[in-house]
Amino acid sequence: MRDVHAEAPAHGRLRLRSVGLSGIRKPLVVQRPDRQNTLAVTFRVAVDLPSDRKGSDLSRNAEILAEVVDTTVTRPVDSLESACSSIARELLVRHAYATEAYVEASAEYFLRKGISEEKRSYEDYTLLAEARAVREPDGHVTLRRSVGAEAVGMTACPCAMETCRAKLLQEYPGLADPQFETLPMISHNQRNRTRLVFELEDAVEIEVDRVIAAIEASQSSPTYAILKRGDEGQVVLDAHRHPKFVEDVVRDLLASIPDRFPELADATGVRASTVSEESIHKYNVDAAHRLTLGELRRPLGP
Amino acid sequence: MRDVHAEAPAHGRLRLRSVGLSGIRKPLVVQRPDRQNTLAVTFRVAVDLPSDRKGSDLSRNAEILAEVVDTTVTRPVDSLESACSSIARELLVRHAYATEAYVEASAEYFLRKGISEEKRSYEDYTLLAEARAVREPDGHVTLRRSVGAEAVGMTACPCAMETCRAKLLQEYPGLADPQFETLPMISHNQRNRTRLVFELEDAVEIEVDRVIAAIEASQSSPTYAILKRGDEGQVVLDAHRHPKFVEDVVRDLLASIPDRFPELADATGVRASTVSEESIHKYNVDAAHRLTLGELRRPLGP
Amino acid sequence: MRDVHAEAPAHGRLRLRSVGLSGIRKPLVVQRPDRQNTLAVTFRVAVDLPSDRKGSDLSRNAEILAEVVDTTVTRPVDSLESACSSIARELLVRHAYATEAYVEASAEYFLRKGISEEKRSYEDYTLLAEARAVREPDGHVTLRRSVGAEAVGMTACPCAMETCRAKLLQEYPGLADPQFETLPMISHNQRNRTRLVFELEDAVEIEVDRVIAAIEASQSSPTYAILKRGDEGQVVLDAHRHPKFVEDVVRDLLASIPDRFPELADATGVRASTVSEESIHKYNVDAAHRLTLGELRRPLGP
Amino acid sequence: MRDVHAEAPAHGRLRLRSVGLSGIRKPLVVQRPDRQNTLAVTFRVAVDLPSDRKGSDLSRNAEILAEVVDTTVTRPVDSLESACSSIARELLVRHAYATEAYVEASAEYFLRKGISEEKRSYEDYTLLAEARAVREPDGHVTLRRSVGAEAVGMTACPCAMETCRAKLLQEYPGLADPQFETLPMISHNQRNRTRLVFELEDAVEIEVDRVIAAIEASQSSPTYAILKRGDEGQVVLDAHRHPKFVEDVVRDLLASIPDRFPELADATGVRASTVSEESIHKYNVDAAHRLTLGELRRPLGP
Repeated sequence: MRDVHAEAPAHGRLRLRSVGLSGIRKPLVVQRPDRQNTLAVTFRVAVDLPSDRKGSDLSRNAEILAEVVDTTVTRPVDSLESACSSIARELLVRHAYATEAYVEASAEYFLRKGISEEKRSYEDYTLLAEARAVREPDGHVTLRRSVGAEAVGMTACPCAMETCRAKLLQEYPGLADPQFETLPMISHNQRNRTRLVFELEDAVEIEVDRVIAAIEASQSSPTYAILKRGDEGQVVLDAHRHPKFVEDVVRDLLASIPDRFPELADATGVRASTVSEESIHKYNVDAAHRLTLGELRRPLGP
Repeated sequence: MRDVHAEAPAHGRLRLRSVGLSGIRKPLVVQRPDRQNTLAVTFRVAVDLPSDRKGSDLSRNAEILAEVVDTTVTRPVDSLESACSSIARELLVRHAYATEAYVEASAEYFLRKGISEEKRSYEDYTLLAEARAVREPDGHVTLRRSVGAEAVGMTACPCAMETCRAKLLQEYPGLADPQFETLPMISHNQRNRTRLVFELEDAVEIEVDRVIAAIEASQSSPTYAILKRGDEGQVVLDAHRHPKFVEDVVRDLLASIPDRFPELADATGVRASTVSEESIHKYNVDAAHRLTLGELRRPLGP
Repeated sequence: MRDVHAEAPAHGRLRLRSVGLSGIRKPLVVQRPDRQNTLAVTFRVAVDLPSDRKGSDLSRNAEILAEVVDTTVTRPVDSLESACSSIARELLVRHAYATEAYVEASAEYFLRKGISEEKRSYEDYTLLAEARAVREPDGHVTLRRSVGAEAVGMTACPCAMETCRAKLLQEYPGLADPQFETLPMISHNQRNRTRLVFELEDAVEIEVDRVIAAIEASQSSPTYAILKRGDEGQVVLDAHRHPKFVEDVVRDLLASIPDRFPELADATGVRASTVSEESIHKYNVDAAHRLTLGELRRPLGP
Repeated sequence: MRDVHAEAPAHGRLRLRSVGLSGIRKPLVVQRPDRQNTLAVTFRVAVDLPSDRKGSDLSRNAEILAEVVDTTVTRPVDSLESACSSIARELLVRHAYATEAYVEASAEYFLRKGISEEKRSYEDYTLLAEARAVREPDGHVTLRRSVGAEAVGMTACPCAMETCRAKLLQEYPGLADPQFETLPMISHNQRNRTRLVFELEDAVEIEVDRVIAAIEASQSSPTYAILKRGDEGQVVLDAHRHPKFVEDVVRDLLASIPDRFPELADATGVRASTVSEESIHKYNVDAAHRLTLGELRRPLGP
């Protein structure tokens, strides 16, 4: 049988940056200190292709996924990102002609949380992981990884709150009384999705629950599946006592990283992004930034 | 060439309820009194198939769409729903073996609106239309159509508002003063999508802008693309002065139909449904009902 | 605190058919004979609402999901559909004012399969389940459930195959030789998604792997994650030796049910539907039918 | 009224790379030589934010969209990308504190095409445009834009074709006869989505129909809405006479650019990417590359 992939390409003898599989779904079992988590993961796995080769042996990508991921059902791995690193490394082993391998993974993740102990329930989050393996000229392989999460929470707008305060003061002059200075005012509030991703040396592990905690602390309030009447009021109050623009969410999140993640190196990349699905508009509002932990740790200007 | 479609099916000599095309996109030009609208429509077009025939001649469906829809670029039609009726009728002409034809269409629709005359901008809505043609035993064809729309607006929760009022009264006892009786209190508010669909005799035309107006009047507030600071405050105030559960949105919408659409027959079917993308939960809340205009017009019990 | 939900609605004193939660995600652990499966399920849970009550106590729906679903992490259930039945039953217990409860669930499901024993890997499918509980006038509750699955496979078009045979015969007259009578000819082939759902008495359990097997047998060929060169050829050959219209997929699937599911009652409803994401068009082609097992078991006409 | 946006941020006094609106839908009218096209566009519009300012004045983004885009209903623009450039430029005018502005736009686009003149119909494509404006230290603004499209077509696999040829030769030895050397063999074929995007100086206009033509020429075959029986056979034959890996699609597309776009400068960036929705797998296969036109024009190695 002809090995069509190994033939020379007809036209366009170009190296290609990336050839791979995408949208492949796999169950992955992760061993956490206290329990096993089964994640349903969407993978993208790709390598580059040299200019003298017509095709990439893509069945190998599916085989690697079966070997690394499917086997976790009986032998769990430490984390989604460590599985990504193993896959990236193995891609370079089996695609001898490739010099770079990329793995991207996202998975739904359930955490048992609640506004109080007895109202805990599974809340859903998204895990994000990437690995990139490079075959250096001397033949050894270097690996970088990204680890992060997305959490859905709530934001209340600080600007509309002040506008409403001014409007209501005209209608209810008694609100000018100093006793009402801290009274939270109506505003628009909405579903907010925020992401935090770290770009790391391959060996570094980050407990994803800490990433989620950092995100939820940066929103006006986390949200919960089970809220009885009084709890709903509490979440609404908390959100209106911490009104946030998308700008505030990203800045507060980034500003919290040095204290929350003191063990990470200065060279660590930090990406934060957020989307508010505005209740008063049909469109979304978003903000994003990327910098290094070293830049975050430097004292800020006046 | 063999006509494989007209052959007898190998096994399973069953009549099939529906065989057709779906996800087919087409530009449709509609002539409104004051302007032309170009809609990008997603169609589903199908007919039934008798038990003695292997396949439906699906290329005829694509030809009908080209003839009825593509030609509107030069000869606009009156409405999306009248195009659906024409397509349904023609499906029965060209599929002589079929007894039923179904057409479903949805399209984005832009209306120029604003919180004030000078802040008008295009707001996006969804149009919904269906047509069903039946070949009666005596050979003549009867047609029914559905016409409707979906609008995105805002809801504020009446329950969390009362809970927050009670909580804040404890913290700010001065709020018990009668002057604050009507002071709108903080609550959770969110993006809400509401649909209204009428099921009609084929000949009846309904101005879709009236459908959208009915929906927006049933939400806590409509939303707008352009809101300067003071406008944002106004929308937030309006929404909190009209707090609504999803239940209220559906009931208020249905209750408004007899006055808003006095010309429609008692036999007209009315479907209303709504989804609130809750700001305090990661999930949605929804409500739905269907009844006839006759039922809506009957005096309600105590 | 005011119980706003229990108050009378302001306008539109209408009973509502359905008020509930949708898009709520939960992990559900199912105990199979040989292993545990963790499913990530999307639920919709709703009840009706009488005309004299403003709102439905929706936090109860979230509590029931936490009690029935979250606890399966330590106490697995038999099946997704039995969890739906438990939820539907409990909805009527805790919404004393409701007479109907609906539960809809869909979940990704992984089965370890392969074109051969050593090339097995996890393939992904979708599980579908529904439960409906009705409180009868005498107070007792009746339950109905739906159980089904969707599988992605491949279809090859029988009509284009015959057209290509005719075209190629003109170009290669030697193909008229009887030795080539069974030679499979080129055609268009594509990704196909097919669903089979049974509507059942509440107590009936159906092994979902049998549902998936029935679907895959009705497509031109199942598809697999791992296919080495020779295996790819085998799948392509199999598909072209079983060319199928969407009409054939639905009919062959329905025709196979009496033999595959002899234990199910005549009153069982059977819904089959299929979508081919046509390779030669930008749109999809679909077919659907619904009938009872009793109707399927009756001898078909000539 | 307090101008909350202009206040200093509470914590995290960081410059933010991007703050903006996303998912905003607008109708845009483009004047082509022979006709007007109404596009329904999804925009993302953003600017950066200096460290001393709490919020970005996002209502200005919506106002700019209304002024630049909404007005095209009466005064059409030349192209989607020229509208993006105008918006990017205006963003820097009205956000005096910003130094960078980004605009991203995608829109569905209909072209009347067919396998023959009398079978023409509207086929749908996606237009892609971006603009980036930078305020240089000397105050003047530089602009870059991206212009591209995505087209859905068909690919047939060259490898499975050779495998099937080998398998069928064993079963039908008569196929070894030289007369059958060019006989196209069965393979898997599927829906393929391919993108081509140019990164350009702001002033450069590219006729988008030429971009679509380049993409469709790189796939195994374009696809059409209307195909009668003989036409279907023709498309299937064409596709199997031009079997393509995703690697071939990207390389053939890139290799065709120097001849198809001789007027573009060497510094022009060229991005090509493709996704095949494999019929024999449940996952997709993709390939991507980026380089400059100058690199493409250099003679390739042996």
